[in-house]
Amino acid sequence: MPGSHCTKDIHKNISCSTSAACSSPATTFTELQPLMASHDLPPEHDNSQLDRKEKDPERPGARCLQTARARFLKGVSYFSGDMKVFGKWMEKQFILLQLLDWVLRGAAQVMFVNNPLSGLIIFAGLILQNYWWALNGFVGTLFATISALILQQNRGAIAAGLYGYNGILVGLLMAVFSNKGDWYWWLLLPNIFMSMMCPIVSSALASINSRWDLPVFTLPFNILVCLHMVATGHFNHYFPQVLIQPRSELANITWAEIDVAQLFMSVPVGVGQVYGCDNPWTGGIFIISLFISSPITCAHAVLGSAVGMVSGLALAAPFGDIYFGLWGYNCVLACIAIGGMFYALTWQVHLLAITCAFFCAYLGSAIANIMSTFGLPACTWPFCLSALTFLLLTTGTSKIFKLPLAKVNYPEKNLGYFWKLKKQEKLKKAEKENNESEEQKKAIENEMILNEKEQLRLELEQFDEKRAASEASEGKNDETYVEGVEQQGTEEIRHDDLIEVTVADNA
Amino acid sequence: MPGSHCTKDIHKNISCSTSAACSSPATTFTELQPLMASHDLPPEHDNSQLDRKEKDPERPGARCLQTARARFLKGVSYFSGDMKVFGKWMEKQFILLQLLDWVLRGAAQVMFVNNPLSGLIIFAGLILQNYWWALNGFVGTLFATISALILQQNRGAIAAGLYGYNGILVGLLMAVFSNKGDWYWWLLLPNIFMSMMCPIVSSALASINSRWDLPVFTLPFNILVCLHMVATGHFNHYFPQVLIQPRSELANITWAEIDVAQLFMSVPVGVGQVYGCDNPWTGGIFIISLFISSPITCAHAVLGSAVGMVSGLALAAPFGDIYFGLWGYNCVLACIAIGGMFYALTWQVHLLAITCAFFCAYLGSAIANIMSTFGLPACTWPFCLSALTFLLLTTGTSKIFKLPLAKVNYPEKNLGYFWKLKKQEKLKKAEKENNESEEQKKAIENEMILNEKEQLRLELEQFDEKRAASEASEGKNDETYVEGVEQQGTEEIRHDDLIEVTVADNA
Amino acid sequence: MPGSHCTKDIHKNISCSTSAACSSPATTFTELQPLMASHDLPPEHDNSQLDRKEKDPERPGARCLQTARARFLKGVSYFSGDMKVFGKWMEKQFILLQLLDWVLRGAAQVMFVNNPLSGLIIFAGLILQNYWWALNGFVGTLFATISALILQQNRGAIAAGLYGYNGILVGLLMAVFSNKGDWYWWLLLPNIFMSMMCPIVSSALASINSRWDLPVFTLPFNILVCLHMVATGHFNHYFPQVLIQPRSELANITWAEIDVAQLFMSVPVGVGQVYGCDNPWTGGIFIISLFISSPITCAHAVLGSAVGMVSGLALAAPFGDIYFGLWGYNCVLACIAIGGMFYALTWQVHLLAITCAFFCAYLGSAIANIMSTFGLPACTWPFCLSALTFLLLTTGTSKIFKLPLAKVNYPEKNLGYFWKLKKQEKLKKAEKENNESEEQKKAIENEMILNEKEQLRLELEQFDEKRAASEASEGKNDETYVEGVEQQGTEEIRHDDLIEVTVADNA
Repeated sequence: MPGSHCTKDIHKNISCSTSAACSSPATTFTELQPLMASHDLPPEHDNSQLDRKEKDPERPGARCLQTARARFLKGVSYFSGDMKVFGKWMEKQFILLQLLDWVLRGAAQVMFVNNPLSGLIIFAGLILQNYWWALNGFVGTLFATISALILQQNRGAIAAGLYGYNGILVGLLMAVFSNKGDWYWWLLLPNIFMSMMCPIVSSALASINSRWDLPVFTLPFNILVCLHMVATGHFNHYFPQVLIQPRSELANITWAEIDVAQLFMSVPVGVGQVYGCDNPWTGGIFIISLFISSPITCAHAVLGSAVGMVSGLALAAPFGDIYFGLWGYNCVLACIAIGGMFYALTWQVHLLAITCAFFCAYLGSAIANIMSTFGLPACTWPFCLSALTFLLLTTGTSKIFKLPLAKVNYPEKNLGYFWKLKKQEKLKKAEKENNESEEQKKAIENEMILNEKEQLRLELEQFDEKRAASEASEGKNDETYVEGVEQQGTEEIRHDDLIEVTVADNA
Repeated sequence: MPGSHCTKDIHKNISCSTSAACSSPATTFTELQPLMASHDLPPEHDNSQLDRKEKDPERPGARCLQTARARFLKGVSYFSGDMKVFGKWMEKQFILLQLLDWVLRGAAQVMFVNNPLSGLIIFAGLILQNYWWALNGFVGTLFATISALILQQNRGAIAAGLYGYNGILVGLLMAVFSNKGDWYWWLLLPNIFMSMMCPIVSSALASINSRWDLPVFTLPFNILVCLHMVATGHFNHYFPQVLIQPRSELANITWAEIDVAQLFMSVPVGVGQVYGCDNPWTGGIFIISLFISSPITCAHAVLGSAVGMVSGLALAAPFGDIYFGLWGYNCVLACIAIGGMFYALTWQVHLLAITCAFFCAYLGSAIANIMSTFGLPACTWPFCLSALTFLLLTTGTSKIFKLPLAKVNYPEKNLGYFWKLKKQEKLKKAEKENNESEEQKKAIENEMILNEKEQLRLELEQFDEKRAASEASEGKNDETYVEGVEQQGTEEIRHDDLIEVTVADNA
Repeated sequence: MPGSHCTKDIHKNISCSTSAACSSPATTFTELQPLMASHDLPPEHDNSQLDRKEKDPERPGARCLQTARARFLKGVSYFSGDMKVFGKWMEKQFILLQLLDWVLRGAAQVMFVNNPLSGLIIFAGLILQNYWWALNGFVGTLFATISALILQQNRGAIAAGLYGYNGILVGLLMAVFSNKGDWYWWLLLPNIFMSMMCPIVSSALASINSRWDLPVFTLPFNILVCLHMVATGHFNHYFPQVLIQPRSELANITWAEIDVAQLFMSVPVGVGQVYGCDNPWTGGIFIISLFISSPITCAHAVLGSAVGMVSGLALAAPFGDIYFGLWGYNCVLACIAIGGMFYALTWQVHLLAITCAFFCAYLGSAIANIMSTFGLPACTWPFCLSALTFLLLTTGTSKIFKLPLAKVNYPEKNLGYFWKLKKQEKLKKAEKENNESEEQKKAIENEMILNEKEQLRLELEQFDEKRAASEASEGKNDETYVEGVEQQGTEEIRHDDLIEVTVADNA
């Protein structure tokens, strides 16, 4: 979802240390490595949840097991993470096949996942939920991607699905909130128009957000779906929307009536509601699709949904809303975004992600109440606003490290980048210390050179004087010459100065 | 309307190629030329709608006709475009006359037209509509301009009417939406206050928008009129507003009842609604005033109004609203702004302008529904937001060229600027190729110089050696000297180095 | 309230003249001086409202009086202004005592006052109003400050109370608008959560506002209190809010019924309403606390409240609202902010502050009407928006000087800074003129040096020619050598060039 919405401006924002890191061949090397195939790289590149004991290579049985694991990891690497190898292979394929890849990645990018397999599983989940919605989602993603191609947007961003994820949400949610029921084919017209507007709005917002090195998140989707819904409204002949009205009486909350099973079920439902789906199985499938690409993302998604549920209970929300996952989906996205996606995951960042999820839940309730005045749903405005707020935060601690937008990938890789950077900093420090001692050496050398120069100068003086004397004895007007040189005031011996100039040139 | 709302910041945004273009005397020359008087300039400076065949100067009859046309064009040039000659002449006149010029230009700047004659015709149209409204509009423009003078804003911007156009809209619309009827003289008090606030809000918004090299459009007007209307509201003793309420039932739309004549009439009415006028004749007068200054602007205005009408039909708007021009006026402005005003007109930009008009119509409906919750009209918010979105768009194609804000004029002149720039780029390319061959020449020359130097060096060595030998025979300690020089390590023969330094100086 | 919310970005915005001023030791010196202890500094450092006649030091009685006054002023300086001496002393105290200092400064920073004594008096006023509110305010300030410490925000900003003032407002207003009545202890939970969110929102907003060198004002408070109120709403079981509804009928305004006494009382009530207090005595106490720190601030606060009252009458507001101070508190803050706090006080700025107060009153009515649609109070949104608008204003006059954010203090000190800057500019001008005459001298000297060089060159030529001749007579191939040198084309005599290079080095 993030990453490439960067115009030229953001390059100014990227710190020098970053650019230093970029240019180092080591980083480039790891960039090209698939996720799990890192068994022969230093430990920071490994996935933490895979315990490995390959430190004893003497036993032949262990060696065999090790080889098997290596093969397994290599196999896993091909369809986890961002499937870079697959993406590279795709580049040489037929354009329609490529487009399919982009659409699938776009579907997964809603959850910040750049993985066509996850996208495929997500589409499966959508089909399980509702055929018509899935179709609308597909049409939305497709036309958003096509529109980005027409507008000649960044090809890398298109290939990462960064122009598709708003399209799928626009398509899905326009179908979800349409009051005409399923299979109302006319709906595809505004769906296609709004999907094709996505890249324009994305590009415009990126121009603004890039000034602070921020991603656009799902803001284009929020803007365009709200635009469509409020432009037509509930009382429209062609494209009526479901009726949403502000709360005007106390909700009936009796703690005795609470259904704990449904409460627990609300966690996967919350994940499903990111795509507007209330089927817990669909939510479960989405969780699996997240796990395939990035376990950290998956964990934060579940955590976020749970935080949303708890917040709903704390703020006296009607149980129905909580069961329906309305308190969860924004927190899911916010928790993923902060917890490892745009910040490098440390435990401070983990706490920050949980705080952000709580804040997001609060904000979700507020925005839902405000939007209902206009007959609108909250969409993912709460997620966007809370995540942007937390990304704008500046702190004095180095434990909360915001990745430059151009370097954002999936949490595991971000972590690798962060560690790399820290290592380089350490190396630089060490080097600096070395440099300092070297500088001392150099200073000594310089002094020696100066001494030599001084010596040379004296010799030159002697030489000149002698020559002058010898020439004077030859009856030439050398006195005038020496006088002229001395009048310059800034140089006494011109031969010496010549040498100084050239030394300065070489330094 | 745009142009001079630029603080120092925007200069950073202007690309080097632009500044290169500015400094070239050729551009400056065309800047000073009135619009139509370009019969002896290269074809890119001609108006496309005037076909000319002056390539056959041998026939005396043709020559006569040609002279007549040239004179006609020269005459036209005096009151079309931005009337630069008239503006220059005005600078030497009495301040009150100047102020009148600024007010008239301000009235026309609502439509991005910097032309006092258009402004005069627009005032005629307003008087045709309603005396009281016209008076309020005049007062608004006048006090907005005076306030800008007091606040010592940019004199060029004031003279172009860039501080007046928000004033006329504030004055007009406050009168239009007042519930006290015409000739309620107390209304002039808030009118004057709000008009005088225009330059402050304009300046503040320009500080923000200039970061993205964007104009402020009619945002100050939108802010201030909404401010006044919502601050007083419908239930106010002194300044009540007309009652605007959100739609709460299905509109009655029977296609059999549609009035095609009124539907076509809605196109000029839509142009008139930019100034809040529902009289089709007033709209027609406005179209004429646009044609005088810039035919491209005029064409896009009509096109935008038509797009708005079609959008209204597509989104099931009540026919009454469409007839009343409420779907047109924002699209008119958006279509003008994108179609040649802030982008150089190419056919891609033309398509973009139509897309923007459709988007603006959608947005117009949405904003009207939202604003009605607060008892407010949509004003020109939809135009501002859609045009700003489309101006923030960044694409990979050079066919969509956004003019730097400081270079924005009227579409025909913008086109000339764009062509000039392209030509210069081509010239630069050609020059670069020349330079490359020249560089090869230079490289050969440099090699020759180096060879000469090498030769000279050898000679100097010989010379020095010989002199040293001769001097050694004179019993001097030359060995030490030569040794000292060689200890330097970076230079072997000091005479040679001397030459190198000076050569570097000359390079 | 402002000052330190500046990230690295703002340093770019600060003009060179400023940085020049910063580096001057004189400024640093005055920065360390307490407010009133300036009796031995140049007159621009004195408080204008204290007339002093210490120009006659010959009379012994006068001298005695003078000493007494000096002592008095020194004494006053210890608890007026920003109490820098006390702040410095505090730095060495126990952390809890420091925290208390920060909390008290935070309480006063709502009114832009960085003074713990004012804060103490303000808390006294709050206790007079309502114990429960005062407690909530204290808890809010405390936890906001603690949260800022946890997030490792700028220590100087924390010590100035810049992370506390939003906290006190959040705490107070959440208590004021709670529908559960006083001593509903559960309210402390959301109070603490929202207070702890203050530094996060502050930091995020500062990241944005610092691009335009703007402070965040009370925007975090506005955002967070509105967030809490709209998230829970009137119909909530745990945290219900008071019911606020939009006006739906004409208010009963009979001028005969007006109560002039209450109208005058509305001025201090307006000051009190900044903290949500409707007790006129509390308002009076707040005015005193302002006077202690900065008389200019105090005067503008009273002026702003009066302007708000007048605006309310002009816009036909219900008398009850005016008496209740609802028209005053935003104008109080806006008038303080513009009148001497962020602009250096001149009479033009004074007029601007009054204009801003009128604009703020208008805006206040508008925002109150809009917010009431969502059941929200206006909070201090009108103040924030109007003050930000007026701070974004750019004018051509030097009489309206916006202080760089990092240099903002209290009005009296700002004025001193402004005068210092003007003086330095004058000095620079004078210096420049001196420099110009000195440059002329230098030019003459340079000419002399050039003449000497020319002379020297001729001598060298002679010398070389002679030597060449002498050496030629010795049968050496000197011709070739001279030829080689002359082929270089850019230098005729190499010794001379050598000298030129070194001269350039010294220039």
